[in-house]
Amino acid sequence: MAQAARLSGFPEWLPADRIVEERVIDLLKHTFELNGYAALHTRAVEPLSALAKDGEIDKEIFAVSRLHGDPSDSRNPMGLHFDLTVPFARYVVENAGHLSFPFKRYQIQPVWRGERPQDGRFREFIQADIDVVAEDSLADHFEVEVPLVMAQAFDALRELGVPPVRILANNRKLLEGFARGLGLDDIPAVLRSLDKYDKIGPERVGELLASDAGASAAQQQALLKLAAIEADTSSFADEVLALGVTDPLLDEGLESLVRLVDAAHRIQPGVVVAQLKIARGLDYYTGSVYETQLLGHESLGSVCSGGRYDSLASNGKKTYPGVGISLGVSRLMSRLVGKNRMLAATRSVPTAVLIAVTDERGRAEADAVAMQLRRRGIPVDVAPAASKFGKQIRFADRRGIPYVWFVDGETGHEVKDIRSGEQVSADPELWTPPAEDVWPRVERVAGDEA
Amino acid sequence: MAQAARLSGFPEWLPADRIVEERVIDLLKHTFELNGYAALHTRAVEPLSALAKDGEIDKEIFAVSRLHGDPSDSRNPMGLHFDLTVPFARYVVENAGHLSFPFKRYQIQPVWRGERPQDGRFREFIQADIDVVAEDSLADHFEVEVPLVMAQAFDALRELGVPPVRILANNRKLLEGFARGLGLDDIPAVLRSLDKYDKIGPERVGELLASDAGASAAQQQALLKLAAIEADTSSFADEVLALGVTDPLLDEGLESLVRLVDAAHRIQPGVVVAQLKIARGLDYYTGSVYETQLLGHESLGSVCSGGRYDSLASNGKKTYPGVGISLGVSRLMSRLVGKNRMLAATRSVPTAVLIAVTDERGRAEADAVAMQLRRRGIPVDVAPAASKFGKQIRFADRRGIPYVWFVDGETGHEVKDIRSGEQVSADPELWTPPAEDVWPRVERVAGDEA
Repeated sequence: MAQAARLSGFPEWLPADRIVEERVIDLLKHTFELNGYAALHTRAVEPLSALAKDGEIDKEIFAVSRLHGDPSDSRNPMGLHFDLTVPFARYVVENAGHLSFPFKRYQIQPVWRGERPQDGRFREFIQADIDVVAEDSLADHFEVEVPLVMAQAFDALRELGVPPVRILANNRKLLEGFARGLGLDDIPAVLRSLDKYDKIGPERVGELLASDAGASAAQQQALLKLAAIEADTSSFADEVLALGVTDPLLDEGLESLVRLVDAAHRIQPGVVVAQLKIARGLDYYTGSVYETQLLGHESLGSVCSGGRYDSLASNGKKTYPGVGISLGVSRLMSRLVGKNRMLAATRSVPTAVLIAVTDERGRAEADAVAMQLRRRGIPVDVAPAASKFGKQIRFADRRGIPYVWFVDGETGHEVKDIRSGEQVSADPELWTPPAEDVWPRVERVAGDEA
Repeated sequence: MAQAARLSGFPEWLPADRIVEERVIDLLKHTFELNGYAALHTRAVEPLSALAKDGEIDKEIFAVSRLHGDPSDSRNPMGLHFDLTVPFARYVVENAGHLSFPFKRYQIQPVWRGERPQDGRFREFIQADIDVVAEDSLADHFEVEVPLVMAQAFDALRELGVPPVRILANNRKLLEGFARGLGLDDIPAVLRSLDKYDKIGPERVGELLASDAGASAAQQQALLKLAAIEADTSSFADEVLALGVTDPLLDEGLESLVRLVDAAHRIQPGVVVAQLKIARGLDYYTGSVYETQLLGHESLGSVCSGGRYDSLASNGKKTYPGVGISLGVSRLMSRLVGKNRMLAATRSVPTAVLIAVTDERGRAEADAVAMQLRRRGIPVDVAPAASKFGKQIRFADRRGIPYVWFVDGETGHEVKDIRSGEQVSADPELWTPPAEDVWPRVERVAGDEA
């Protein structure tokens, strides 16, 4: 017998909010497909060894085992994937012979992380990823394309009332080249320190750079000046050069970031911003890195992050460099429909028309009318029990169903718009609701200023 | 570094086959929504205790635990859901105050079972469920509605080339009443024996009825005669009555099954067949039970099963009786795209048009043309590298992209249908491919006789 069993960090939406989520996902899919990305779906589990980072299995991982497994199960322990990049890299290596490169795919699925649940952070959450993976070498222009496709996707979401975003970009080569040009060698320590900039502030980042990366006061200052640079045009390049550091890798990274910012600026000024403090935690990025702020909701953290990885996927003979970005659908949803909801569906059911049943003997005819309307693409439900006029209206009203249909053999059919009260004769082979009433709409909640 | 790691029983499709799966799922969703079923999504995990059957945790269950969990985790052990009915029942109890009853929902998600993988049986597979749940009492007509909605869904799938189905129906009350009318008391043993009819044949079912349910030779014979009855009209009722067994529960079950078969016959003769040997393994069914054969693929087992359950969901004060049916999307897919594939997508990418790039300096203009076409709803990709004419055509051809677009500042734009070789001038603000070329189509494979 089922019992309530809420689990913190495992969000589930009510039906009206699931309509919002489905609409968000549909707009994302449509944008990705318009840009040539193929839909992909991978299994939920991977061998535990594949989920290791830096050779260590993170404690966030959820392990999966058969309750009464046989010995073959324990030889190959599994875990739930914590992102969609690792399963995708494995899929590419496994199916390389059947794929055409560069291979562009999107993937919208849940992922699992055993983190402490908090605002916008869940233990099970849906991500929407796009990636481009090539064989042997990946052209740099894909590092420009990937964030711009996400910018398009967020643009499509604005129609629903989702706030605008700012995609923050940087380049690992730029950071690494700059650090090397300064004479620093422990690049991972430099990146780890910079990655804490927003959390702990410049002063403590300086201390970390000293203690962890062995940076002198002058080196700290140069890195902190670099980290403070931010611009939505390629003007930032002059600021970097003015710091007087030179290194071939720095030039490469700078050129790549300039190309991205220029291209974005041509298409939609302000949507992509170079922010040189962005480092990203994951170790596998090798070029561009991206984070995304939902404007007015910066405290939520990044809603869409990613970067270029050159050596995530390899079968020993060939490598498959890629670039990707991942949108946190559940994190976004937590602001769209949470406590201070921004969006709402106009109804909690797909149904546009309720066929009234005033006598159980009339159910077969009501069912027949419902089928006539459905055949013409109108979502219809039939009253679950015969009841009086008022009860039928209340049934529709409670669910937000706009129309109630009255079947009557003698005087003909009538349909009532329960919002206006207007009731008209109708022919089940001809009547159609206005286009905006056929399916539930997602609308901005009155009073929301986003 | 990603490595190949195939896991038996965890199917993953290549991009072209994922297009088939997405099309199948879209048609299911559309049918369910036309019938007023709301989309729902539940988390993948449940408390292990909620996944117990008859108080016992099945060995098929995959347990989930944090690799380095804290003590609070072990107090509340979890597992991956093995179906979508159990999570749905829990969701209903948990959210009853926010739902309007009768509540109709559909749910299309993966489920996990640690069974031995075999033809059409996987360890991770996608199910598409519809259920109607009421508060306190559920009207019988929903037992008619649910299989008929699935019949509509399979009808929609036939457009793709999916073979037709036969939905087999029976009623637990009919079986229980008949057994009681015969003087038998151990109903679970009777049901378990009958459930093996197709697997072991009538003779051995008779032996089981004797050994497990204590049935005499006459009782065995009566039950085996009942089990052999099959009809797609209500004529079967006379055959049941002719067996001379009487019981009030038998009458109830018979009436319910007659109503279903009559209603189905009116709408689409032959699609629902009363087959009185159908018992279903799950213990929670209390009324109608359903199985579904894919015609010509009967050996695959049931592709769509379910039934009525009166006491799956309860919060102690109220019960939520329901009826549902679950379509095995992955099982169906295993026949649609497997070894003897029936269906194929016309291409492996969403892309309808490839914009050729013959010189990297022309990439910005190619990107601009791509955006113009996308804004008008045409899926477009841009050549990943500048190359000669032939290479661009081969790139498109390998993916099944039908059109290649040539940007030329001087003589204007031209677009080539690479199937016919026809090349015409085109304006990126006006040109549109024929409707059937905009998105990939799913077509029956030549030579398939289904």
